[in-house]
Amino acid sequence: MLACILCEPHPDYPAAVAYEPSKPLQIENIQVAPPNSGEVRVKIVNTALCHTDFYTLSGKDPEGLFPCILGHEAAGIIESVGDGVTELKPGDHVIPCYQAECRECRACTSGKTNLCGKVRSATGVGVMLSDKTSRFSLNGAPIYHFMGTSTFSEYTVVHDVSVAKINPAAPLDKVCLLGCGIPTGLGAVFNAAKVEAGSTVAVFGLGTVGLAVCEGAKKAGATRIIGIDTNASKYEVATTFGATEFVNPKDHAKPIQEVLVDLTDGGVDYSFECIGNVAVMRAALESCIKGWGTSVIVGVAASGQEISTRPFQLVTGRVWKGTAFGGYKSRTDVPKLVDAYMNKEIKLDEYVTHNFKLDDINHAFDLLEAGKCLRAVIHM
Amino acid sequence: MLACILCEPHPDYPAAVAYEPSKPLQIENIQVAPPNSGEVRVKIVNTALCHTDFYTLSGKDPEGLFPCILGHEAAGIIESVGDGVTELKPGDHVIPCYQAECRECRACTSGKTNLCGKVRSATGVGVMLSDKTSRFSLNGAPIYHFMGTSTFSEYTVVHDVSVAKINPAAPLDKVCLLGCGIPTGLGAVFNAAKVEAGSTVAVFGLGTVGLAVCEGAKKAGATRIIGIDTNASKYEVATTFGATEFVNPKDHAKPIQEVLVDLTDGGVDYSFECIGNVAVMRAALESCIKGWGTSVIVGVAASGQEISTRPFQLVTGRVWKGTAFGGYKSRTDVPKLVDAYMNKEIKLDEYVTHNFKLDDINHAFDLLEAGKCLRAVIHM
Ligand SMILES: NC(=O)c1ccc[n+]([C@@H]2O[C@H](COP(=O)([O-])OP(=O)(O)OC[C@H]3O[C@@H](n4cnc5c(N)ncnc54)[C@H](O)[C@@H]3O)[C@@H](O)[C@H]2O)c1
Ligand SMILES: NC(=O)c1ccc[n+]([C@@H]2O[C@H](COP(=O)([O-])OP(=O)(O)OC[C@H]3O[C@@H](n4cnc5c(N)ncnc54)[C@H](O)[C@@H]3O)[C@@H](O)[C@H]2O)c1
Ligand SMILES: [Zn+2]
Ligand SMILES: [Zn+2]
Ligand SMILES: [Zn+2]
Ligand SMILES: [Zn+2]
Repeated sequence: MLACILCEPHPDYPAAVAYEPSKPLQIENIQVAPPNSGEVRVKIVNTALCHTDFYTLSGKDPEGLFPCILGHEAAGIIESVGDGVTELKPGDHVIPCYQAECRECRACTSGKTNLCGKVRSATGVGVMLSDKTSRFSLNGAPIYHFMGTSTFSEYTVVHDVSVAKINPAAPLDKVCLLGCGIPTGLGAVFNAAKVEAGSTVAVFGLGTVGLAVCEGAKKAGATRIIGIDTNASKYEVATTFGATEFVNPKDHAKPIQEVLVDLTDGGVDYSFECIGNVAVMRAALESCIKGWGTSVIVGVAASGQEISTRPFQLVTGRVWKGTAFGGYKSRTDVPKLVDAYMNKEIKLDEYVTHNFKLDDINHAFDLLEAGKCLRAVIHM
Repeated sequence: MLACILCEPHPDYPAAVAYEPSKPLQIENIQVAPPNSGEVRVKIVNTALCHTDFYTLSGKDPEGLFPCILGHEAAGIIESVGDGVTELKPGDHVIPCYQAECRECRACTSGKTNLCGKVRSATGVGVMLSDKTSRFSLNGAPIYHFMGTSTFSEYTVVHDVSVAKINPAAPLDKVCLLGCGIPTGLGAVFNAAKVEAGSTVAVFGLGTVGLAVCEGAKKAGATRIIGIDTNASKYEVATTFGATEFVNPKDHAKPIQEVLVDLTDGGVDYSFECIGNVAVMRAALESCIKGWGTSVIVGVAASGQEISTRPFQLVTGRVWKGTAFGGYKSRTDVPKLVDAYMNKEIKLDEYVTHNFKLDDINHAFDLLEAGKCLRAVIHM
């Protein structure tokens, strides 16, 4: 474990391996092969846990592959780079991103989306693009990658197009959060909804993503920010993120959309679903005002589930959209978000409710599941 | 019938009365009371038939009230005005609009929607706002208004906020079409979708509304305009409106959205549902390209029906929206559309496939139902 990684091509380093659905992760000393062409090997310094890790571990994700190394919200330092990698070098501080940005494909050059398709054929099936194999193994048996990031490992290999190079002065145990949930919430406000000053906003679900939406809405100048959560213990912290009032669906017999339409004299200007519940997605749309109300789906529903509404909701002017990673481009925008944090323009520290060593990662999963934590940061 | 209407407060004039669902209209000499405060009485010169008249007559519209006078795509001349009406005077050429524009309510002043709510509480239940009664009667028994327009009548009474004053030189037997379907299709392109030059567009349903979408998309500079209709006899005329290629769902075993995604290397930039079929609404959304594809629902589905999709469709960047009257403001924009027609910037003549006297209106309904007519214009 203390050998120089540069001297040993396949050193053994600890990682939390997900062997099968719904079982605790196991800490193993795995082999991490050197980066191939177009890849970099990153020493992960900090990683946080997100709902999506939990979802895949639960076994409900039909695309989940086991054994794998989960994790996609992290920060670290480049250890080595493969052939043809020109924009990154050992020592660079980076955030590995599950959404690539190749700057060449139709999506990247469209100017309309962050959904680069360059490496998806590989990351969607747990391997690297160059040779369609994994860089992780244990005693010769391969372990799948996850989301192209696999950050629950002291070393990981990622595609160079998926790596955001950031200000080296930034604290990695905080900016690791910029790998997923917080950009998603902020971008839902700024890039997807484009909330204007004076708006009334409803935020369904006050986890990390929902709180980032509250923060974004406040920055955008929204005057009413209504937080909706079935867990009333979330309201206090949400107030510090900008929520101005709360509705607990459990306090109402009638559908939550009717409660919100009454409370806002016709409906909200913008709503955000930050839970992953298809019934709430419908409620969020139907909470919007006729004529221009826009609802953004941020939560990820379980596979196979569907959303529904009466088409009249849309014909009368409501807009239904969604966002992945808040519409942010990973290599272009994540470094700017790091700078925004350094300039105290966006919060990060306030989301970190727990810090653990990698050995305690299963405890962090338990807290996330119990709704008792916003972000637990793992220190490798 | 030839008496001066100004001398007789309740003259008898012909109208096509819908007595009950699914029964032919009956031509009756009805009484049309003078306009009350904020109302005008209009001599209808021409009226066309639209799908919505047919839908309400079918009895499927749960809000349909009988007996009533249908019709909402028309042009005429102001015969008299009620108290407080300052912007309209007898002799003005007008298009009565089912969507009001009061210029004072929250919707009108929002700058974001055309869905003025000023008179809806009355027009939604077949009466006039000032006294919540109807101006139509036959031997003392009231007959309901429809959509605030009721243009299948030689004289009708409408709210002044619902009347577009137009260029008196415009031929009323053509510009009557600007009361509904054609602005809806054009506005779906220009106001709802905002199609850009170079786009690929799919138009589901090639009736009047779909053809207007084709025309708008062509004007917007779309390079591929794919018309989809189960009735192949529509393709020839659609070509003259701008469609560049056609797909008949009947020719394909696989779902139409898969056909379109294959045909366009990933999906279209914009799709429009101009039928009123909830399954096609889903197909139209799912025909859109990941990242930015936008689908606009224009068709009106039968009451109670719902649209569905997987939320992943939206999370990966597709946008689902709709439009009513194409987002056009009736008093502000309809006169401009009349001018655009006079300047040969938009087509109207090409949509008129039949001309009838009011006595033959049931025949026009039959043709519309059989898909054998675009617009049948009634000459009073
Ligand atoms: N679109 C993206 O790119 C993206 C990125 C990151 C996360 N996500 C998704 O965003 C969602 C939220 O993530 P998170 O980390 O904030 O999750 P979280 O579990 O911390 O927060 C969810 C909140 O919703 C509340 N809740 C649950 N059911 C509710 C209901 N019926 N009504 C009201 N409130 C309810 C919970 O009490 C909790 O406070 C997840 O679905 C996650 O997968 C999406
Ligand atoms: N949103 C609004 O403000 C607004 C305004 C006017 C009309 N509308 C609606 O727009 C729709 C179209 O109106 P129109 O007057 O053009 O109707 P139409 O009946 O003339 O045209 C509909 C076309 O769809 C085709 N079609 C039917 N089922 C199909 C299927 N499964 N797949 C492919 N094609 C199919 C028909 O062959 C026909 O050509 C109607 O639902 C109408 O109520 C909406
Ligand atoms: Zn995540
Ligand atoms: Zn790309
Ligand atoms: Zn108004
Ligand atoms: Zn119509």
